[in-house]
Amino acid sequence: MKAVASPLHLAAGLTELWSPRVIAEVNDAYVKVAKVQGELAAHRHEHEDELFLVLKGAFRLELESGPVDLTAGDMFVVPRNTLHRPVAPEECLLLLLEPKTTQHTGDLVTERTRSMEEQLRPL
Amino acid sequence: MKAVASPLHLAAGLTELWSPRVIAEVNDAYVKVAKVQGELAAHRHEHEDELFLVLKGAFRLELESGPVDLTAGDMFVVPRNTLHRPVAPEECLLLLLEPKTTQHTGDLVTERTRSMEEQLRPL
Repeated sequence: MKAVASPLHLAAGLTELWSPRVIAEVNDAYVKVAKVQGELAAHRHEHEDELFLVLKGAFRLELESGPVDLTAGDMFVVPRNTLHRPVAPEECLLLLLEPKTTQHTGDLVTERTRSMEEQLRPL
Repeated sequence: MKAVASPLHLAAGLTELWSPRVIAEVNDAYVKVAKVQGELAAHRHEHEDELFLVLKGAFRLELESGPVDLTAGDMFVVPRNTLHRPVAPEECLLLLLEPKTTQHTGDLVTERTRSMEEQLRPL
């Protein structure tokens, strides 16, 4: 994907909540955008750090060490093997960066879990 | 680095041009911010893709295939082994993502080239 992308505009155009979509690849990682509201089950990625950059709205990561509150423009890296529950009180747009191997909800599978094939659907 | 970071604010606070600073690590990559104006010599990273996200201002990547013009919010990945000359007509704030192994000006060394030690100085 060699085109210029606007993560904010791509995220704003999403119609499904909690359904990350790949917008670029960089080395062994995918850049994804997501639109979220509500909360996702707590999960961990045993071997992979996960980067969150809030494009719009507010976002909370509930960690065992306490909550991490982010607003638009804020970035946070969830270290590998760290239990985290993503929470968005209102609609929030996110940019994510994670290795291509990362499973959506890590060690957990719920009805919201998205496969890599679903995440790779063209926007 | 487990703290919440605001790439835009960190980049805005930089005093040196063309001097990327590491603000986070995620897996095998560093997230960096930079303040740029003018242009850097054309160079390539043989084995590493490089992600650019414009936080503020306008930025141009001159590739052999033509120019890529970016404005605030735009993202572009320069594929590995691609000659690119970064140009910023006015002051521009950038977020970069590249493998920890990536050399600042790739295959070229100029008086502007920054070592990894310089890039890792705490902000």
